[in-house]
Amino acid sequence: MQNERTIFLTNDDSYASKGFRAAVEVARSFGRVIAIAPDRVQSGMSQAITISSPLFLRKVEQSDGVEIYAFSGTPVDCVKIAFDHFLRERKIDLVLSGINHGSNAAVNVMYSGTMGAAIEGSFYGIPAVGLSLDDHSADADFEAAVEYGRRILSSLFDAGASLPNPLCLNVNVPNIPLAEIRGIRLCRQTRGFWREDFYARQDPRGRDYFWLTGEFHNAEPDADDTDEWALAHGFVAVVPVQVDMTDYKALSALNDVIPQH
Amino acid sequence: MQNERTIFLTNDDSYASKGFRAAVEVARSFGRVIAIAPDRVQSGMSQAITISSPLFLRKVEQSDGVEIYAFSGTPVDCVKIAFDHFLRERKIDLVLSGINHGSNAAVNVMYSGTMGAAIEGSFYGIPAVGLSLDDHSADADFEAAVEYGRRILSSLFDAGASLPNPLCLNVNVPNIPLAEIRGIRLCRQTRGFWREDFYARQDPRGRDYFWLTGEFHNAEPDADDTDEWALAHGFVAVVPVQVDMTDYKALSALNDVIPQH
Repeated sequence: MQNERTIFLTNDDSYASKGFRAAVEVARSFGRVIAIAPDRVQSGMSQAITISSPLFLRKVEQSDGVEIYAFSGTPVDCVKIAFDHFLRERKIDLVLSGINHGSNAAVNVMYSGTMGAAIEGSFYGIPAVGLSLDDHSADADFEAAVEYGRRILSSLFDAGASLPNPLCLNVNVPNIPLAEIRGIRLCRQTRGFWREDFYARQDPRGRDYFWLTGEFHNAEPDADDTDEWALAHGFVAVVPVQVDMTDYKALSALNDVIPQH
Repeated sequence: MQNERTIFLTNDDSYASKGFRAAVEVARSFGRVIAIAPDRVQSGMSQAITISSPLFLRKVEQSDGVEIYAFSGTPVDCVKIAFDHFLRERKIDLVLSGINHGSNAAVNVMYSGTMGAAIEGSFYGIPAVGLSLDDHSADADFEAAVEYGRRILSSLFDAGASLPNPLCLNVNVPNIPLAEIRGIRLCRQTRGFWREDFYARQDPRGRDYFWLTGEFHNAEPDADDTDEWALAHGFVAVVPVQVDMTDYKALSALNDVIPQH
């Protein structure tokens, strides 16, 4: 039974990243793998879609139980072309996006192409997991992320039909050795924001250029029910994500501000 | 007093779009305008940021009370370079993003570069408004959107310090003549999703390509408190937007699914 499952893989660091290979390893423990992933790095692409240009797909690997395609679009484009075109006839049991090089905790969920793809996957009624390791380096050690990815997928498959639907999980693994990880915490998204510090320099032709760099400001560092807290304290952080962005509190406050006539 | 206000403008259709000019018209009624907008179309760019390449800025206009720059980044990059670099010393009273060619109601809030920029603007503690017209055509008639944009900005400025903070509004104007608009409705985001129908063709060299096209499926067409309902019934839809994407309902349901140890 277990080997009949099919897991769809994508990410934002491209099919050629080390984290993608780690995700194949996670998924392969549960069944067949079909992947459509970006053909180049698409970090920070959020929920972006490609409207104004055509997109190209090529097969990069077909081996025992693993089929991998590289796509010229964004992470969300990868999910859309998969579920609305190539995989319409196939039953997919889970969407796994990652393993991301770098944390997608807190407000990063909004900028991340890996989470954009996971969120998009959940729109197709399939459990979706975005899996990220809090280490940006190309050669990061994914051992702990693979192990905890497996544990979480295993729990989801065990729960089966009793899972909430839609379901999208933002899973972040701290950058510490597997043996030091204290466990898993279900959390909420930390409040906070990035403040940028642009490098302002000149290119070889004397033109000014700007290059984004910045740091995250945690607006609630002491709140122990947040994903940032969990990561900082050695836990794997799991935040279920939904897409109703309505600010219900502001909705009532605005009744007195905006005349509805 | 009124003319001392400064409004920051951006969008995702570029500084050269008709909708951008319409936004200048809206903003100019309330004070000075400073704009950093994409130098080319960035529709569907969501909350995307540019991490891996340098960005270039050029001044395209400086006239009485209006200063416009074209930036090679995404809409969110425009907001970040403005507030974290160029405008750090200046007091900005409001962020206006738009006027978008096309609706950003319902789940479009997540794909839209115009809304991505508005959301980003609200991270700087400044009221932010994303303003969109439900008409994608390049030559759309923005009369009604300009008029209702003015009314809503006027309400926000009147409310001043009593506004919720952060505040981000997703304002969508139906594609009907001004005289037929029935008023403004405060709404919640409609539940729904896009299903795509990719054009699959061959390029002049015989390579297969795919081009995204699709349609929105409204999951609750009869709910009269949603933005899609308001637009369909001749109202300007105003949805306050926040960025905590935690699925609190799933959070409790998952306690029995994911072992926290």
